Amino acid sequence: MQQPWQDPTLPAERRAADLLFRMTLEEKLAQLSSVWPGSESEGEDVAPLQHELSEPVELTSLLPHGLGQLTRPFGTTPVEPAEGAWNLARTQLRIMEANRFGLPALAHEECLTGFTAWQATILPTPLAWGAAFHPELVERAAALIGASLRSVGIHQGLSPVLDVVRDPRWGRTEESIGEDPYLVSTIATGYVRGLESRGVVATLKHFAGYSASRGARNHAPVSLGPREMADVILPPFEMALRDGGARSVMAAYNDTDGVPAHADADLLTGLLREEWGFTGTVVADYFGISFLELSHRLADSPGRAAALALSAGVDVELPAVRCYGEPLLKAVRSGEVPESLVDRAVLRVLTQKAELGLLDPDWTAVPATLTEETPVDLDPPQLRTVARQLAEESVVLLENRDGTLPLPPAARIAVAGPLADDPAAMLGCYSFPRHVGVEHPELPMGVPVPTLLDALRSELPDARIERTGPGADMSGPGAEDRPDVLVAVVGDRSGLFGRGTSGEGCDAPDLELPDGQGEMLDELLDTGIPVVLVLLTGRPYALGRWADRVAAVVQAFFPGQEGGPAVAGVLAGRVNPSGRLPVSVPRLPGGQPWTYLAPPLGLLGDASSLDPTPLYPFGHGLSFTDFAWEQPAADDSTLTTDGGTTVRVTVRNTGEREGTEVVQLYLHDPAASVVRPVNRLIGYTRVTLAPGEATEVRFAFHADLSAFTVRPGRRVVEPGELELRLAASSGDIRHTLPLVLTGPERAVGHDRRMTCPVEAG
Amino acid sequence: MQQPWQDPTLPAERRAADLLFRMTLEEKLAQLSSVWPGSESEGEDVAPLQHELSEPVELTSLLPHGLGQLTRPFGTTPVEPAEGAWNLARTQLRIMEANRFGLPALAHEECLTGFTAWQATILPTPLAWGAAFHPELVERAAALIGASLRSVGIHQGLSPVLDVVRDPRWGRTEESIGEDPYLVSTIATGYVRGLESRGVVATLKHFAGYSASRGARNHAPVSLGPREMADVILPPFEMALRDGGARSVMAAYNDTDGVPAHADADLLTGLLREEWGFTGTVVADYFGISFLELSHRLADSPGRAAALALSAGVDVELPAVRCYGEPLLKAVRSGEVPESLVDRAVLRVLTQKAELGLLDPDWTAVPATLTEETPVDLDPPQLRTVARQLAEESVVLLENRDGTLPLPPAARIAVAGPLADDPAAMLGCYSFPRHVGVEHPELPMGVPVPTLLDALRSELPDARIERTGPGADMSGPGAEDRPDVLVAVVGDRSGLFGRGTSGEGCDAPDLELPDGQGEMLDELLDTGIPVVLVLLTGRPYALGRWADRVAAVVQAFFPGQEGGPAVAGVLAGRVNPSGRLPVSVPRLPGGQPWTYLAPPLGLLGDASSLDPTPLYPFGHGLSFTDFAWEQPAADDSTLTTDGGTTVRVTVRNTGEREGTEVVQLYLHDPAASVVRPVNRLIGYTRVTLAPGEATEVRFAFHADLSAFTVRPGRRVVEPGELELRLAASSGDIRHTLPLVLTGPERAVGHDRRMTCPVEAG
Repeated sequence: MQQPWQDPTLPAERRAADLLFRMTLEEKLAQLSSVWPGSESEGEDVAPLQHELSEPVELTSLLPHGLGQLTRPFGTTPVEPAEGAWNLARTQLRIMEANRFGLPALAHEECLTGFTAWQATILPTPLAWGAAFHPELVERAAALIGASLRSVGIHQGLSPVLDVVRDPRWGRTEESIGEDPYLVSTIATGYVRGLESRGVVATLKHFAGYSASRGARNHAPVSLGPREMADVILPPFEMALRDGGARSVMAAYNDTDGVPAHADADLLTGLLREEWGFTGTVVADYFGISFLELSHRLADSPGRAAALALSAGVDVELPAVRCYGEPLLKAVRSGEVPESLVDRAVLRVLTQKAELGLLDPDWTAVPATLTEETPVDLDPPQLRTVARQLAEESVVLLENRDGTLPLPPAARIAVAGPLADDPAAMLGCYSFPRHVGVEHPELPMGVPVPTLLDALRSELPDARIERTGPGADMSGPGAEDRPDVLVAVVGDRSGLFGRGTSGEGCDAPDLELPDGQGEMLDELLDTGIPVVLVLLTGRPYALGRWADRVAAVVQAFFPGQEGGPAVAGVLAGRVNPSGRLPVSVPRLPGGQPWTYLAPPLGLLGDASSLDPTPLYPFGHGLSFTDFAWEQPAADDSTLTTDGGTTVRVTVRNTGEREGTEVVQLYLHDPAASVVRPVNRLIGYTRVTLAPGEATEVRFAFHADLSAFTVRPGRRVVEPGELELRLAASSGDIRHTLPLVLTGPERAVGHDRRMTCPVEAG
Repeated sequence: MQQPWQDPTLPAERRAADLLFRMTLEEKLAQLSSVWPGSESEGEDVAPLQHELSEPVELTSLLPHGLGQLTRPFGTTPVEPAEGAWNLARTQLRIMEANRFGLPALAHEECLTGFTAWQATILPTPLAWGAAFHPELVERAAALIGASLRSVGIHQGLSPVLDVVRDPRWGRTEESIGEDPYLVSTIATGYVRGLESRGVVATLKHFAGYSASRGARNHAPVSLGPREMADVILPPFEMALRDGGARSVMAAYNDTDGVPAHADADLLTGLLREEWGFTGTVVADYFGISFLELSHRLADSPGRAAALALSAGVDVELPAVRCYGEPLLKAVRSGEVPESLVDRAVLRVLTQKAELGLLDPDWTAVPATLTEETPVDLDPPQLRTVARQLAEESVVLLENRDGTLPLPPAARIAVAGPLADDPAAMLGCYSFPRHVGVEHPELPMGVPVPTLLDALRSELPDARIERTGPGADMSGPGAEDRPDVLVAVVGDRSGLFGRGTSGEGCDAPDLELPDGQGEMLDELLDTGIPVVLVLLTGRPYALGRWADRVAAVVQAFFPGQEGGPAVAGVLAGRVNPSGRLPVSVPRLPGGQPWTYLAPPLGLLGDASSLDPTPLYPFGHGLSFTDFAWEQPAADDSTLTTDGGTTVRVTVRNTGEREGTEVVQLYLHDPAASVVRPVNRLIGYTRVTLAPGEATEVRFAFHADLSAFTVRPGRRVVEPGELELRLAASSGDIRHTLPLVLTGPERAVGHDRRMTCPVEAG
């Protein structure tokens, strides 16, 4: 007889409650746990991955209670996609057969730059998404990623990263979208929509404050007050939940002002559940519950760590059970932890499983698209196309003196720099080759990743392109052998925990180009030959030392497997660059942290000898064509504090070729009851225009967009003067529009308008 | 007839209230204002100093209303002490004669490294006080400084600086005492006791958070949560008020989490007045009220800035009237600002004037000690003696390989480095020569300041000492001409606002030795001759690059006019060094901010590729003798959460000469309900021992010392395990003592024990 929990016509929460009611405490706790089987495992011999913080698990004794999650079935060791999918299906069958309800596990994977699996498309890293200023394109990419995940049996993706960059020395800057909360919010929300559109649970991470660690050291303490938290750090999460529909949130490793996120009930329950109404799951970051005991020292045992995390609101321990197993069982049995807290978490987990169909009687471990005959293609053409478009739109032309770029078709080009012929230079630290493949040096990359040198040769078949080193003598040969231009390809090696110059755990002491590449650049510039500097990096680097000497500068942020053709396309002129900086490029390596999102005293002033003005500001990027901005107008110059108006500006392509302008809208608040940034992005759009073409861009401004937090928990729209700034970058304000808000101060909440819709044409 | 306000037998507040009652609004506001006359002015022709933010003041029309303060009668332009004293007396007479109550102004001055006046003793900078770990000596120094101030008619000193160093790149690090709140608290409280013991109002600055500015840029925004504020930033202020008896507090320039201190009623009134019971005055930092309008943009006019500051609790505008004059008058007349807020501030000002005797009928503008016959000596022998002792005790011997130091009496010594023969290298930015004299290049220093080269020649009359540059060829001459040792004297030039490499407004992008002195050091080391590195700096600098190559390292922090003999005394062995680092010395120039006061995740760990472990940790310093520490004992191993016990440790001088050990007590809290630092200083003392001598050091530990802030506003002692760590530095724990606190969690308040009294012998 079908039980209520098995009935697909009932609401998911009802089914979850029914199932919960039938479970023993052991069965409940099993739903809050995960096992890390390793990709090579299948069926009978699931061998949990060993880690110093993963207690060895005796699966035969564990599985009869069921299992909440399966950790990274693909992203742990290399496996052929079809083989991995069948392994996972067999593992699920074993799990289902072992527990009395026949429940499968929820399988999660990483998918930040695409599915972190061997032979899966590698997209640009999130910092490149930020540079593209194109949330709809990121949404398309994420939808295709979601389809890939579902096709092989994955239910949850541990992306995106919504940490607002607060100190670019942090190694995970490459995984982040940028230094502006509005840019991060809108791009990340696009990603979430895409992933969720294919039924995959998107996981917002890292909740919250992680990017602001002291000295940019990964996991280090975060000094942050409640206003900055509310106005800078939290809005991306709020938008991605409310407007994107994300169904999971990952707690952050860090403590903020002494309270670790994994133990922060105000954050995980008070704000997230009670104020924002979130009903999905909160998962631990890997080992994050154990860190309450071992690093943060809030607990003196795994059981106490479990109690803290569970009561704060962490529902699922990842990546493997340590605290939520036997220690939590004992704590509940002893009465230290009320079983109602366990029930609260299990209800959320089972509700999500019900939504995903995992409780349905007809659920099968083998995805419908997986057959013995159908090949599993994780690098399908439509994903490559999106990867290419995203890469192309994310390339930022920072400098272009005397029309150095595009390079002439028949140019004599010398290509220097350690990254020119290194395919890995295109890839971020959550790509499979950098994340896992690096431990398997014999393993092929799995997907085609043209180097910049390869791609440049393809783009410019008539050019004479030679590979050179910085030590090569450029002065010796006759003039006919001397190259017209030097392309210097420098940047980062992405990797994990000290394996790279960028990436998780690879934090920089300053923003000096790593690995002595600055000295190499000096040598190249000393030849007198014009130098085109190409940066393939995971963070911005200080370029002030060379700013006046380089002929052109092209900045790409780990653009993925299609990055070589994208960057070469810009160099050759096939692609008219349209990327804009999602992070400021500083002059000097020191002086961090700094952000454009600063009040007057955070900018250049008399009080400090340090000039923090960036070399290239947030939002900056050049094109091969020119744009003229006409005087904008607003339908109203006076609004009430709950009113809105349309701001119109006409942008014209005054150059010779088609190009894309990113029209940016900033808000300036001349006087407010707390300190506010001088400029803050509140809207943007890309407009592509043929030569001579003009278009009107209309921003639907609403007073809600001027809201900020005056006291912890109180966000208001204040009456008074505002200024809207139409800009080509945060440092290039083209026009300003004064605006007056009238009426009373107005408190706003979770239902306020957070976006500024834009139309063009 | 004598009015109540004139009656010295009545309580000061009663007298103030009586006088307030008689005042017009204009007279009240005049008491909240200051005039900056300039040191050269006298009697009839007081000419207010012009500054872009000081409105020109028409004194003739201003003075009939009275005057609250006089700004820097000595520290503005050079003036002979006696002439300055008489000028000030005549100015006071003019002020008294012009107002109907005959009230004088309260005269304030800077006095951070001694009275900032020409020809006054220049003491070591506060970072050197921190290095001496000797609050009683700082108290003696401050008492003598106070006596100097009073002798010439100054009532208030704008010292000390209680900002806990949070990022040593900040230029004002030299003005701060160190990176540990307990060290800052105890030393600053000593200073306050000394100054107040001579009837001079000590001014605690900067209240609060100023040292934690983003990127260490002066005045930049501060990201800080309430727990860090309560447990790191505020305790020095709390102790200096409660135990030191400071009667004035200066608001800080910065905003913290969006709220500028000058507009922060929670801080200036809620905490300071209501919770701590402070009854003295709160003064603005110079132009700090105007900055609410011009920099923080909380106000759109001077009147609105005045309203914000006054209602928050700023009583006196400094250095000159801009907002608290006409603009505040209008705001009160219009009803925008209640007159009761004015009265509140005036009452505090007049109460302080009453306490200082300024309301007494027999008060005279001419200090009793000032006669036409008596010379005014601001550099008296007893102050020089204290300056010398403080300088000597503050020199830190960081490294001494193979007994390089002391230098042999007949050594052949080459002295290199730009600071070897520069007297100004001894002086901090609040010394008169660096603060004011620098604008008068022809002006003599005013006090004798021997250079290190001079002093070394005096200390070692039999040595062959030659001045050399880094470019000098050391290899050419025969072995008999080759020096035995190179003394490299490098460091900072202190100055204001871009004039120096250290000092107010001279912030550093990183901790690289400035002015290319690192390259000079490389050259010197390349000679192969042993190098003794002498640092005369205002902050710690990264020394990792040379750590393995230098023979010895001596660190002094702007040791003042007696600094040359003090450092030379250490080099020559006359002085056995006893200074300990008040700030960590890092290996690398990057990676800031960092502090030793960090939880496990703020220290070296697997999560980051950056190793922040300092080269020389907080509290480190060597001696020419050795000390053995016997196993310590506590009278109790279990205490209640309101209990105390005595911790005993015996220290023995096992070397050949007398020396001083700084016995440090750190607290380690293995598990707490919020994240806590691994080590935290809670007690220390200096013990001087003859060769072979031993002494027992007894720390009166109390559970209150383990208190911390669990939630904003709630500080508790938690039961559980603790560990007391007896240490020679934060990186050199000699012994540990476990301790268990039993009983309930106990909330503690402003009356808790904040110090750990120590006895020795």
